[in-house]
Amino acid sequence: MILLSGGLDSATALAVARRDGHRCVTLAIDYGQRHRVELAAAALVSKQLGAVEYRVVPIDLRAVGGSALTAEIEVPKDRSDAAISHGVPITYVPARNLTFLAIAAGLAEVVHARDIYVGTNAVDYSGYPDCRRPFIDAFVAAANLGTKAGSESQEPWLRVHTPLSELSKAAIIRLGVSLGVDYALTTSCYDPMTDASGKPLACGRCDSCQIRRRGFEEAGVADPTRYA
Amino acid sequence: MILLSGGLDSATALAVARRDGHRCVTLAIDYGQRHRVELAAAALVSKQLGAVEYRVVPIDLRAVGGSALTAEIEVPKDRSDAAISHGVPITYVPARNLTFLAIAAGLAEVVHARDIYVGTNAVDYSGYPDCRRPFIDAFVAAANLGTKAGSESQEPWLRVHTPLSELSKAAIIRLGVSLGVDYALTTSCYDPMTDASGKPLACGRCDSCQIRRRGFEEAGVADPTRYA
Repeated sequence: MILLSGGLDSATALAVARRDGHRCVTLAIDYGQRHRVELAAAALVSKQLGAVEYRVVPIDLRAVGGSALTAEIEVPKDRSDAAISHGVPITYVPARNLTFLAIAAGLAEVVHARDIYVGTNAVDYSGYPDCRRPFIDAFVAAANLGTKAGSESQEPWLRVHTPLSELSKAAIIRLGVSLGVDYALTTSCYDPMTDASGKPLACGRCDSCQIRRRGFEEAGVADPTRYA
Repeated sequence: MILLSGGLDSATALAVARRDGHRCVTLAIDYGQRHRVELAAAALVSKQLGAVEYRVVPIDLRAVGGSALTAEIEVPKDRSDAAISHGVPITYVPARNLTFLAIAAGLAEVVHARDIYVGTNAVDYSGYPDCRRPFIDAFVAAANLGTKAGSESQEPWLRVHTPLSELSKAAIIRLGVSLGVDYALTTSCYDPMTDASGKPLACGRCDSCQIRRRGFEEAGVADPTRYA
């Protein structure tokens, strides 16, 4: 089971899971995100990388709010490196990874999966508390206690893999390229526009676009992103 | 913050939170449950017990399935006491409390709450792994690591209260009556019907109806439930 956002990191996590020999079920969450075009990207990425099943679970986190991605709060643009790497940004969605991992654990029970891969990364997004490994480990402990599959298993049932945890964005891109990821299918922008034909264009200015663009530069890989 | 289902237990948990002196925000989850009439009950219970705000977050767990409450699986009826108290029933919704608590933690961040009350109970529903205190404690640890509020707090940020954890259904009912809960507003049935005027009728035969009915009997309290 791979939590797939349609972005660069989770696409790479899927490629790693495939390399590890898994039959992969991908899970995307339609959570009322501003950048909902990423769901179309997730479907394409699933197919390109040979997932056997692609699921979408809808949850309306606009009913929770509190983030520039789910409420009427502007996405910050053109922030300095210092600002990007300092503190928890306004694009943090309250308890998002906790919620998404919980949904993934439930689906894992249903499809008889026990390995979840996520594209969390502690290097570029140091401000997001739910991307750190100690959180992931605590989540696994809770999920093993609070599920039927976990409580009935002799050994720990659920495993959550974070293969990108310690990689820079450039290293992630190089890894993904070596595993055949087509990054042209992915989208990272928090505040995308669409062109005249309805195809998404990245803003190029939000934190996520800036980190992505620099990643391609540092990796020495041509950036396939279509910017506005 | 109180996770409110519209049932008997969570209504009592709300009354306990009010007794403890809290201003209460209630949260109901519209998850595609078969017994969706419980949401109307949750709204009424919120009001009757003086919650300051009532929120509903929609998540479609039919996209996950795997339970008689969210998939085309029949709700078991007329089960014996032995069957009811043995194992995890087919009405178990995969990772439901994990998911609902995660959503509650996110909303707690947004509304600046740090106490979550839940009506989980380990006596009557011994089969549900996500109703046990060790799971709740593990969840709290994960939520404190994986949220902005938790990671920025010096002391543990989130607390999850399970005031009914060790009470029998009869004891819960006596407690609720003493705190002014109007159980006529609540609904526990997993497979309710409606009468000619659209008002819900409990089936009286699912596990939840059987446990509820016996609770009123043992508490010596008149059962206000309208059965089919």
